[in-house]
Amino acid sequence: MNKKEIRVALIGAGRIGKLHGDNILAQFPGVKLAGVASVPMEAALEWTRQKGIERVTEDYRELVNDPEIDAVLICSSTDTHAEIIIEAAKAGKHIFCEKPIASSVPRIVEALEAANKAGVKLQVGFNRRFDPHFAKAQEMVKDGKIGDLHLLRITSRDPEAPPVEYVKVSGGMFLDMTIHDFDMARFLSGSEVEEVYASGAVLVDPAIGEAGDIDTAVIQLKFANGAIGTIDNSRRAAYGYDQRIEAFGSKGQVAVANVPESNAVLSNGEAVVGEKPQYFFLERYQQSFIRELRDFFEAIEKDTPTPVTGQDGLEPVLIGLAAALSVKENRPVKLDEIRQQFGL
Amino acid sequence: MNKKEIRVALIGAGRIGKLHGDNILAQFPGVKLAGVASVPMEAALEWTRQKGIERVTEDYRELVNDPEIDAVLICSSTDTHAEIIIEAAKAGKHIFCEKPIASSVPRIVEALEAANKAGVKLQVGFNRRFDPHFAKAQEMVKDGKIGDLHLLRITSRDPEAPPVEYVKVSGGMFLDMTIHDFDMARFLSGSEVEEVYASGAVLVDPAIGEAGDIDTAVIQLKFANGAIGTIDNSRRAAYGYDQRIEAFGSKGQVAVANVPESNAVLSNGEAVVGEKPQYFFLERYQQSFIRELRDFFEAIEKDTPTPVTGQDGLEPVLIGLAAALSVKENRPVKLDEIRQQFGL
Amino acid sequence: MNKKEIRVALIGAGRIGKLHGDNILAQFPGVKLAGVASVPMEAALEWTRQKGIERVTEDYRELVNDPEIDAVLICSSTDTHAEIIIEAAKAGKHIFCEKPIASSVPRIVEALEAANKAGVKLQVGFNRRFDPHFAKAQEMVKDGKIGDLHLLRITSRDPEAPPVEYVKVSGGMFLDMTIHDFDMARFLSGSEVEEVYASGAVLVDPAIGEAGDIDTAVIQLKFANGAIGTIDNSRRAAYGYDQRIEAFGSKGQVAVANVPESNAVLSNGEAVVGEKPQYFFLERYQQSFIRELRDFFEAIEKDTPTPVTGQDGLEPVLIGLAAALSVKENRPVKLDEIRQQFGL
Amino acid sequence: MNKKEIRVALIGAGRIGKLHGDNILAQFPGVKLAGVASVPMEAALEWTRQKGIERVTEDYRELVNDPEIDAVLICSSTDTHAEIIIEAAKAGKHIFCEKPIASSVPRIVEALEAANKAGVKLQVGFNRRFDPHFAKAQEMVKDGKIGDLHLLRITSRDPEAPPVEYVKVSGGMFLDMTIHDFDMARFLSGSEVEEVYASGAVLVDPAIGEAGDIDTAVIQLKFANGAIGTIDNSRRAAYGYDQRIEAFGSKGQVAVANVPESNAVLSNGEAVVGEKPQYFFLERYQQSFIRELRDFFEAIEKDTPTPVTGQDGLEPVLIGLAAALSVKENRPVKLDEIRQQFGL
Repeated sequence: MNKKEIRVALIGAGRIGKLHGDNILAQFPGVKLAGVASVPMEAALEWTRQKGIERVTEDYRELVNDPEIDAVLICSSTDTHAEIIIEAAKAGKHIFCEKPIASSVPRIVEALEAANKAGVKLQVGFNRRFDPHFAKAQEMVKDGKIGDLHLLRITSRDPEAPPVEYVKVSGGMFLDMTIHDFDMARFLSGSEVEEVYASGAVLVDPAIGEAGDIDTAVIQLKFANGAIGTIDNSRRAAYGYDQRIEAFGSKGQVAVANVPESNAVLSNGEAVVGEKPQYFFLERYQQSFIRELRDFFEAIEKDTPTPVTGQDGLEPVLIGLAAALSVKENRPVKLDEIRQQFGL
Repeated sequence: MNKKEIRVALIGAGRIGKLHGDNILAQFPGVKLAGVASVPMEAALEWTRQKGIERVTEDYRELVNDPEIDAVLICSSTDTHAEIIIEAAKAGKHIFCEKPIASSVPRIVEALEAANKAGVKLQVGFNRRFDPHFAKAQEMVKDGKIGDLHLLRITSRDPEAPPVEYVKVSGGMFLDMTIHDFDMARFLSGSEVEEVYASGAVLVDPAIGEAGDIDTAVIQLKFANGAIGTIDNSRRAAYGYDQRIEAFGSKGQVAVANVPESNAVLSNGEAVVGEKPQYFFLERYQQSFIRELRDFFEAIEKDTPTPVTGQDGLEPVLIGLAAALSVKENRPVKLDEIRQQFGL
Repeated sequence: MNKKEIRVALIGAGRIGKLHGDNILAQFPGVKLAGVASVPMEAALEWTRQKGIERVTEDYRELVNDPEIDAVLICSSTDTHAEIIIEAAKAGKHIFCEKPIASSVPRIVEALEAANKAGVKLQVGFNRRFDPHFAKAQEMVKDGKIGDLHLLRITSRDPEAPPVEYVKVSGGMFLDMTIHDFDMARFLSGSEVEEVYASGAVLVDPAIGEAGDIDTAVIQLKFANGAIGTIDNSRRAAYGYDQRIEAFGSKGQVAVANVPESNAVLSNGEAVVGEKPQYFFLERYQQSFIRELRDFFEAIEKDTPTPVTGQDGLEPVLIGLAAALSVKENRPVKLDEIRQQFGL
Repeated sequence: MNKKEIRVALIGAGRIGKLHGDNILAQFPGVKLAGVASVPMEAALEWTRQKGIERVTEDYRELVNDPEIDAVLICSSTDTHAEIIIEAAKAGKHIFCEKPIASSVPRIVEALEAANKAGVKLQVGFNRRFDPHFAKAQEMVKDGKIGDLHLLRITSRDPEAPPVEYVKVSGGMFLDMTIHDFDMARFLSGSEVEEVYASGAVLVDPAIGEAGDIDTAVIQLKFANGAIGTIDNSRRAAYGYDQRIEAFGSKGQVAVANVPESNAVLSNGEAVVGEKPQYFFLERYQQSFIRELRDFFEAIEKDTPTPVTGQDGLEPVLIGLAAALSVKENRPVKLDEIRQQFGL
């Protein structure tokens, strides 16, 4: 195998940054983790030392502008994503960026234009598409196993509500949590969302309501292909992380159930007792984080489009804004209304 | 056991009438099937002869006004239900009436008032409440096993669309098919529906659309207790009768999956292959038809309220009208708007 | 339909006799329950009165010799079965006999010869063959869905051990309980058992051991077709009635899991909790009792062989004797050794 | 964390050796893969180069006797295991050895004595104990969740028979394949096997029979604690790798089903179709290979006993020999008979 090594810089070494870094070290012998940027630098040093990563800096621009670097993984805080994308694109680096690209639509558009103009690869971190279970279901839909899609259902419930302080700066549940489900809706249906009707409620924690957000929601979607979708969300499922999908069509249905912590089932004098679903995204989506990078690196190697494009990063934000407006005004909202608002 | 025998007249001996008649004969030794009314009479004769039922008439009034009769089971065509309820109430008979009571709200109200005034028992044939699986789930919800209800989901899909000729006179999918799900929504939530938003589509058979109806729908419900519900319907699921529910609350979730035709599972070189769900309501809800009668007869014997009251027969019709209006005008519709329309 | 009515006499009106009687009344309009024999007669009277059965006698011979009777259902105590079979055969009646035909092999052979000589139908009450789940599995095996059978596994565990007084007269666990599994082994494999190795233990209740019996066993079977089978038994499973089978072959496997009391599954902060298996044979095998009679009556109507022949009644007894000898001498026992013992 | 780094040498770089090596590199930052021995050396070079492993040799003694090395992982061919254990023990290295330690009982005993005398850790590679599903089941048994063990069942079927050339040198199915199940039987029961009765057959491939081996077997085990166990094996399950266990006791049962390739389930006009079990041990037992090393390294760090001792490496071989003798002579064989044969 004579493939050129891909040299990657990691920008941001928080939980998700370290996760990607560890995956690169463990899973991709042909990829070199050539540097890490962290502010403050100290936060990253124990990890980089332990993993033998030699180059660590506080200034991501050093890495972005280093001609030895081929690609950047942007895992810093959301408000820095667009800026780094624009700089990295100018420097001709391929870009993997954690979701969302930005909380402002014009800023996202700007970042996409920069990447587009520079002709670099851009992949957004919607990892759930790469979950082997969901990917298999999507493959079945795409292969016509269920015929034409009629109904789509996504259940997505977290095991614990985040701290209220986080909720306040999260951009709201739709942009923080449901955004993954909006992406899954587009991914599974192979179609665009045209209209949204959403109901929101504060049923988990009154403090979330006081912070101006909701913690429970049902979102109804109308797709361009005629199908109808439903997403239901809760910030807290007592039994843990509930991540299921169903796609129903003219020839049948494909469904994905939760993955239990183990397959051990106890039958006793009371009941038949199975284990709870895997607790949270680090367990449930472990494989998906590896596979999204695998496909990113493959897109670079083979010079093919990335599997989650910049546009895929923009659309869920637009759907999220439509959903928020729908809850606020209790009416169905067309995506076109949101697009026009931003001159898209 | 010295319980007085209950003497029942069956009015209408079509598919569902015969089903109830057979169940009475087979399951309730303390209940006497004392007469059958059928128009035309000939349609019932093979069955009544075979079952040794001696009294058959074309004129249901004969039975309604027979002092020997304690109760009537109304299984005739929908347009006759209200009239018979009113007459039976006047005659002091207890009444089990197949759903719906009528397609017109004022007519339903009139029938309920007649029964109420006469002080007779009235039970409406929402049999799914008596399905052992759903009844168990409802019991868990009622017993607080899932805490406060947050989300409710009902999936209800038929194996085959009815003939278009039937669709034309059915009153529309919401009143013909979803009405069961509206009842289940009230039953499972223990709460009233306050607002409805529904999306309808014609995805199964264009002829249904030409007949002015829909064949696919998602209905979102807001309950008085703050919970949000979703019903999804299709007139045709390729894999058969799909009847599932989920109730999610502050302490957990209860879910009921489909019942397969058998538990035999084949693992071969291709897949792990299970059987399809039980084909249609006669198989899937076999037990529920027996249990609803059991509880009706028990309400008579013990002089307790029936488990599905006249009001339970009215509410789903109001929800259905709200859903139809919601699809027509693509907006959420409050139940109060429908109630005011009828002065309720 | 001009089928002649089949007139049946029920001999023995204990639990299983009444069950068959009720099923005839409820399920078979073309069959007349023409008389019941019960010793003492009083034991049957409440039931026969309630069901409107007019003819009740203490002397089964009255019924056996009544030219109006076509068939007898023998549900009296085991020690009377052979005698009644012989008399009924002489009288030309078709015979459905509860298992086992007798506890003595020569007596069984005598009964079979009588029925055979008289040319009457004889069916033995191995009802599990008619369970829809197991019947489906057997059909798959017969249809070659798993190719050639290699391994067969039967799990059969009761929810509660019987009273020790019953154990003492039961003929031992192999002839009382496992006999159903021996029949299933022959039914599912479509082959004869040639050799048995069995391990028995007293793990549930020491009193059973003191009564000379075992309460836990694993029985290994070698079939004529080369397959190897395993049966495991316990007199007491804490979670209820455990009835499962697996057949594994060159092309795959078919398995039947337990049937839960309901499909309701609760997910809470502790676990994912399903219901226990249906409690005991009256629930689990409800359908099978109806279906075995259906096929018995059909064999009479169409003059075809019964689906469970007299020979099918003999073989499991021989296997049971081999198993008992195997436990006693801790060695594999060939069926031929048992046959020779009885000159078969 | 100031833990001393553990320096490990890998002896043998075939499939399983590389698997362990990769796991060390990816999962254990505190462990250094300090050298690899491979004969011929060339076979390992592509892998070691790719992974940046600098020290590679043909002579494992170099590594065994290097004072910088703390522990060796023996993954070379079975016939070399005992020799290397003895040398490594003399050199004071901790030892992880792939199963089996040797095919000759006296040789195993010799190796165990050497390790024992040297006071080094010795762990045998029975990885299935570390499978999260089976480990959870064992934990439940140990914690008394099922009460006293009565019945144990292990199903272990491979997706494909190995090449006949391999079969010829494998030591026979019991020592090559069932040995894992014998270990699981001891692990799950927490008890010793006292007697074995086994039936073997050639049903998959006649060539295996011609090579003097069997390809299908059922093995019955009597445990010291009174429980009865069953193992069933096939060299070829059409649907893939079938790895299940059940433990039944006085208070209930714990069972572990297969892990499907994905949770996606397709319902169509024919059936409800799930995916096959994960194909083979590399997928199914992926986690177990990591966890066995984790516990080995932990035993070194904390100076605690290893979770799979040398004795655990010997016992399954004795059970395998008893099973082989049982098939040969068609009789139950006590483990004591085998022990006496070797003066144990």
